Amino acid sequence: MTERRRITPVILSGGSGTRLWPLSRSARPKQLLALTHVETMLQLTVARASGSERFAAPMVVASTAHADEIEAQLAAAGIEVGTLILEPAARNTGPAIALAAFAAEPDAILLVMPSDHVIADVPAFHAAIERAVPLVEAGWLVTFGITPNGPETGYGYIRRGDALAPGVQRVEKFVEKPDRVTAQSYVEDGMHSWNGGIFLFTAASYIAALEAHAPAMAAAAHEAIDAATHDGHRIHPEALSFGRSPNDSIDYAVMEKAERVAVVPVDMGWSDVGSWDALHELAIKDLDGNAHHGEVLAIDTNNCLIRSEGPIVVAVGVKDVIVIATRDAVLVLPRGDSQQIKRAIEALKRDGHVTLDKPWA
Amino acid sequence: MTERRRITPVILSGGSGTRLWPLSRSARPKQLLALTHVETMLQLTVARASGSERFAAPMVVASTAHADEIEAQLAAAGIEVGTLILEPAARNTGPAIALAAFAAEPDAILLVMPSDHVIADVPAFHAAIERAVPLVEAGWLVTFGITPNGPETGYGYIRRGDALAPGVQRVEKFVEKPDRVTAQSYVEDGMHSWNGGIFLFTAASYIAALEAHAPAMAAAAHEAIDAATHDGHRIHPEALSFGRSPNDSIDYAVMEKAERVAVVPVDMGWSDVGSWDALHELAIKDLDGNAHHGEVLAIDTNNCLIRSEGPIVVAVGVKDVIVIATRDAVLVLPRGDSQQIKRAIEALKRDGHVTLDKPWA
Repeated sequence: MTERRRITPVILSGGSGTRLWPLSRSARPKQLLALTHVETMLQLTVARASGSERFAAPMVVASTAHADEIEAQLAAAGIEVGTLILEPAARNTGPAIALAAFAAEPDAILLVMPSDHVIADVPAFHAAIERAVPLVEAGWLVTFGITPNGPETGYGYIRRGDALAPGVQRVEKFVEKPDRVTAQSYVEDGMHSWNGGIFLFTAASYIAALEAHAPAMAAAAHEAIDAATHDGHRIHPEALSFGRSPNDSIDYAVMEKAERVAVVPVDMGWSDVGSWDALHELAIKDLDGNAHHGEVLAIDTNNCLIRSEGPIVVAVGVKDVIVIATRDAVLVLPRGDSQQIKRAIEALKRDGHVTLDKPWA
Repeated sequence: MTERRRITPVILSGGSGTRLWPLSRSARPKQLLALTHVETMLQLTVARASGSERFAAPMVVASTAHADEIEAQLAAAGIEVGTLILEPAARNTGPAIALAAFAAEPDAILLVMPSDHVIADVPAFHAAIERAVPLVEAGWLVTFGITPNGPETGYGYIRRGDALAPGVQRVEKFVEKPDRVTAQSYVEDGMHSWNGGIFLFTAASYIAALEAHAPAMAAAAHEAIDAATHDGHRIHPEALSFGRSPNDSIDYAVMEKAERVAVVPVDMGWSDVGSWDALHELAIKDLDGNAHHGEVLAIDTNNCLIRSEGPIVVAVGVKDVIVIATRDAVLVLPRGDSQQIKRAIEALKRDGHVTLDKPWA
């Protein structure tokens, strides 16, 4: 038997979403927050691919603005950073992963993970990785297909095809976010998984697919890494070259177009914690269905998520409400409909409201 | 005809209620807040008994802790303080008014007013005062009876008796806060008014009634004023004497016991702004029934009161909710049931929570 090759985690920390405003802000996005545990989402992500001989030190792809905070969080978690690639501009996941692929050894196995997801069942995740490795070593691009637990319309779906190996199937088709009826049919037919944005492939396989299907992206990332400046474990890709890259997701640029793409279906307690409702669902709740955090005085409340990062929040006699408070911003939403936040965020963006960017005090 | 005597407003600013927490706190109680207008409740109170030859400069009875703020607010309103009596201890309204009565000329007509009520129809109030003056000059103690607009259980009621003069009746009975059914019968029988805690009498009449019915209170206040120290218009009653006073309301100590007590019924848009619901009722609302104040972004909200003194409050898709936000405390309550706040305040008091006392930042 050959010695098992180490897997290099590639952590994508480029997101600056606002779906968890007022906690998530561009200066301190979701992955840098402790939302579900004492650890931040980034710390949890890195920790689930470390601590064994199987995993090499991680590569983190992030914005320069977050470099110090990322290093501090990994140090606090006792995890050595392998490489911190600081994007000169945000260009979506396709180019971000390309930077990591060009910076890695060609035969390195890259485990690409968003930095802001929850995986409750890490052994199931590790087992799925092991099922994927033989195909990855044979040059396949592998995505992990999350077993859907409901007709979610906020995720892309993967239609699974023929079996390639035990627990590995060919990807028949990537499907855009469906409407509710279509999503329900996907859940019922048992042939679809959620696209969780977690991938396994060798650097060389990704680069080959990129050169075939997104050559401008490949060239831009290649040049940016060739001309990069290095500062300890920090890599600063050359900005002009990288700036020429198309702005596309790995799904659109590569996965939907490449030939040998496999999916490993896995049920591992995954969540992208994409809304306050999702956080309420994940949280440990009291007998009245409440999940409270911080200095909260809640009397006669039911099915609420109340969270404070500073002020005391007093709630009496309210039901099915989400309240998120910081010193400079307070959000109040009905529970079960927390995507309503989008309407407010759009208005705040039109105003260029300061609380979208600066960290909460 | 004799020249009309001037009336001296006696403004009681001793309250430190918590029903409007987190805005109202002991360091900055309700009367010192701008809740209904640009002006504070104290400024509105003083203004409605000033600006004509009818009214002398006001006497304000308050806590030492609020002296500077009171002077600043009256100065900002362009109103000269006559006398600022600073209570060495809180002893309820009976002794507070006694201090003013002993500090005034015996034949002064005193218009006693809580500092934290709203009166929308000031001309109606002034007309009621004029109806009361002849009886006051004849030695009667007069209270103003608010025309009830609903079966409120939070107020005392006055049962009106025989007519004494046009628009003036003898008080037949003061009634404690009734239950809902009794309150409904009071509203329907047309013989009851709310006791709004507004009074008109001469200093001598009040002192005489006090000496007859509450001699210990009279003696304590008298000694405290005789031994008071004076500092410009500030009077500091002597603390030991005043400390010996019983702690009772004017209603209990005097009005319910005295002989010649009259009531002037008046419908003048009165409110004690005793709850967040009351403030919502008073406020000018948008077409969806919302009253918002401060930096509030409300989308698809109905019948809400949302008020911020600092943080931006974002609410989307909520109905019948009260949200009050300061930098250090946030309150969330169902509208229409805002007395629920009592349950929270009791818990905060047990904890000695800092936000009950210190001013909000």
